[in-house]
Amino acid sequence: MTYRENLNKAIQDKNSRLCVGLDPKWQLLPNVQDISPSEKALANALFDFNKLIIDTVAEFSACVKPQVAYYEMLGAAGYAAYERTIAYAQQQGLLVVGDAKRGDIGTTSAAYAEGHLADELKGIFKTPVKRIAADALTVNPFLGSDGVKPFIETAKANNKGLYVLLKTSNPSSSELQDLKVDGKPLYQHLATLFAQWQNDHDFDSLGAVVGATHPDELKAIRSWLPKSPLLIPGYGAQGGKASDLSVAFNDGGLDAVINSSRGVIYAWRDKGIDEGDSNSIAEHIRNAAREARDDINSAVL
Amino acid sequence: MTYRENLNKAIQDKNSRLCVGLDPKWQLLPNVQDISPSEKALANALFDFNKLIIDTVAEFSACVKPQVAYYEMLGAAGYAAYERTIAYAQQQGLLVVGDAKRGDIGTTSAAYAEGHLADELKGIFKTPVKRIAADALTVNPFLGSDGVKPFIETAKANNKGLYVLLKTSNPSSSELQDLKVDGKPLYQHLATLFAQWQNDHDFDSLGAVVGATHPDELKAIRSWLPKSPLLIPGYGAQGGKASDLSVAFNDGGLDAVINSSRGVIYAWRDKGIDEGDSNSIAEHIRNAAREARDDINSAVL
Repeated sequence: MTYRENLNKAIQDKNSRLCVGLDPKWQLLPNVQDISPSEKALANALFDFNKLIIDTVAEFSACVKPQVAYYEMLGAAGYAAYERTIAYAQQQGLLVVGDAKRGDIGTTSAAYAEGHLADELKGIFKTPVKRIAADALTVNPFLGSDGVKPFIETAKANNKGLYVLLKTSNPSSSELQDLKVDGKPLYQHLATLFAQWQNDHDFDSLGAVVGATHPDELKAIRSWLPKSPLLIPGYGAQGGKASDLSVAFNDGGLDAVINSSRGVIYAWRDKGIDEGDSNSIAEHIRNAAREARDDINSAVL
Repeated sequence: MTYRENLNKAIQDKNSRLCVGLDPKWQLLPNVQDISPSEKALANALFDFNKLIIDTVAEFSACVKPQVAYYEMLGAAGYAAYERTIAYAQQQGLLVVGDAKRGDIGTTSAAYAEGHLADELKGIFKTPVKRIAADALTVNPFLGSDGVKPFIETAKANNKGLYVLLKTSNPSSSELQDLKVDGKPLYQHLATLFAQWQNDHDFDSLGAVVGATHPDELKAIRSWLPKSPLLIPGYGAQGGKASDLSVAFNDGGLDAVINSSRGVIYAWRDKGIDEGDSNSIAEHIRNAAREARDDINSAVL
């Protein structure tokens, strides 16, 4: 099955369009002051926190999206926690979107694509070497088509998905992405390139990232890319509202997931709970995930 | 000392503007077929190869530039080899530019900046936790100023440098970077933003990446950013020539380094040598590094 098929199956099976962002800043881990002060100990605690989140949200979310930056903050130990998180989430039946926003010149993009999406190291050894890889990856298109095509080739060969940045959720996204070129915003030019790449490679798991904070742009982008899976960050803590998101979905509420990170994984903070009480932490996370799922479902027409 | 000062000191002390790109694709490691087929064994061999390169080129190069993609190809084990490479190169007196091209929304860029450039984990523990960090990092500006400013803040606080992508060396860089906005190419608009960020933050270690394959653009960019350190990839294997690069340097051949990766680190391939003979491998690498250094110096007026 292609990534797009897997994603839509998950949306239907769970009746959820929620993607939970696994962005655990080490400073905000439960009882962080009691963790041994080393990257390795913090990375292990970070994985344990992710495990609690994954166990809690698995029934309410179609996917999880670890943000690689929060793992790289803890160096190689953090990167190992990223891999363990991918493997554990997949074991619990969740699709994993690696939010890495990689992009480089062609040969280097090919290396990133293999690193993040290939299930096996191939080519030299008689027996392929199994490895941990995400189900989809976010990609930065600043270097143009020869920086994106290696991701498409590797994703297609491994039945994985891509979400290429089109219009990001942050306030200054307008500085480049909205610049007018021949009277049209840059992100519209990019959407034209995306449609061409989809077509050239016959690859309908090529999705796009569009911020929930830009509902008008979201509507336009859905019309330009009618079949693309959309990954929509910026819901909740960043200000995006579910009522603005109905335009994102295809029939049956398919082909789009809405990401919430802080609103779910930190729902227990500032609630005066005992940070050593994992049941209480899980209860707040569970309620937040259920509410986000239901709020998003209310936007599906 | 600031990063810019450290860089110019290295250029003067070594009389070299060469940066050696540490982009070791695991498939091209010496005698790769004899390495145990696991990410860990390959990552260890990759570090050993880097060590040989570093020992060989240290006297001829101002800096080294590990390309993070080739380490992520081997997962967490590869990421550990990246950190070991940084530490070893620094011990040999080389500046290390982490070629990661990271960029995200503000809070996430702050995490990437800490992960790649902070020498200590701060804020929770009584004793700061020491960590391995590069001397400078490449950054992707697609998300605009609020995605770049956290890198500037962390770099400045740690006396580190940044190279933000402006005009990349690859053929399709034109697709976005050259789009005409109000009659001017996008990279010119970006250069205006860069100059403003430098000024706002009083940070002259904010450099730019400009491909050696674009000599006319290089000349223009040097005029718009007179004091910025420039990192210039695309020399050698990608087609850029030293004679086109004199415009990049400030007086005394300062404020620019030219990267060569494949032309140096794979100089021993296709030469019919015994891949088990590390002296012979080192000899080819040494000659290639010396020639690249001299060729680049010939462009300094």
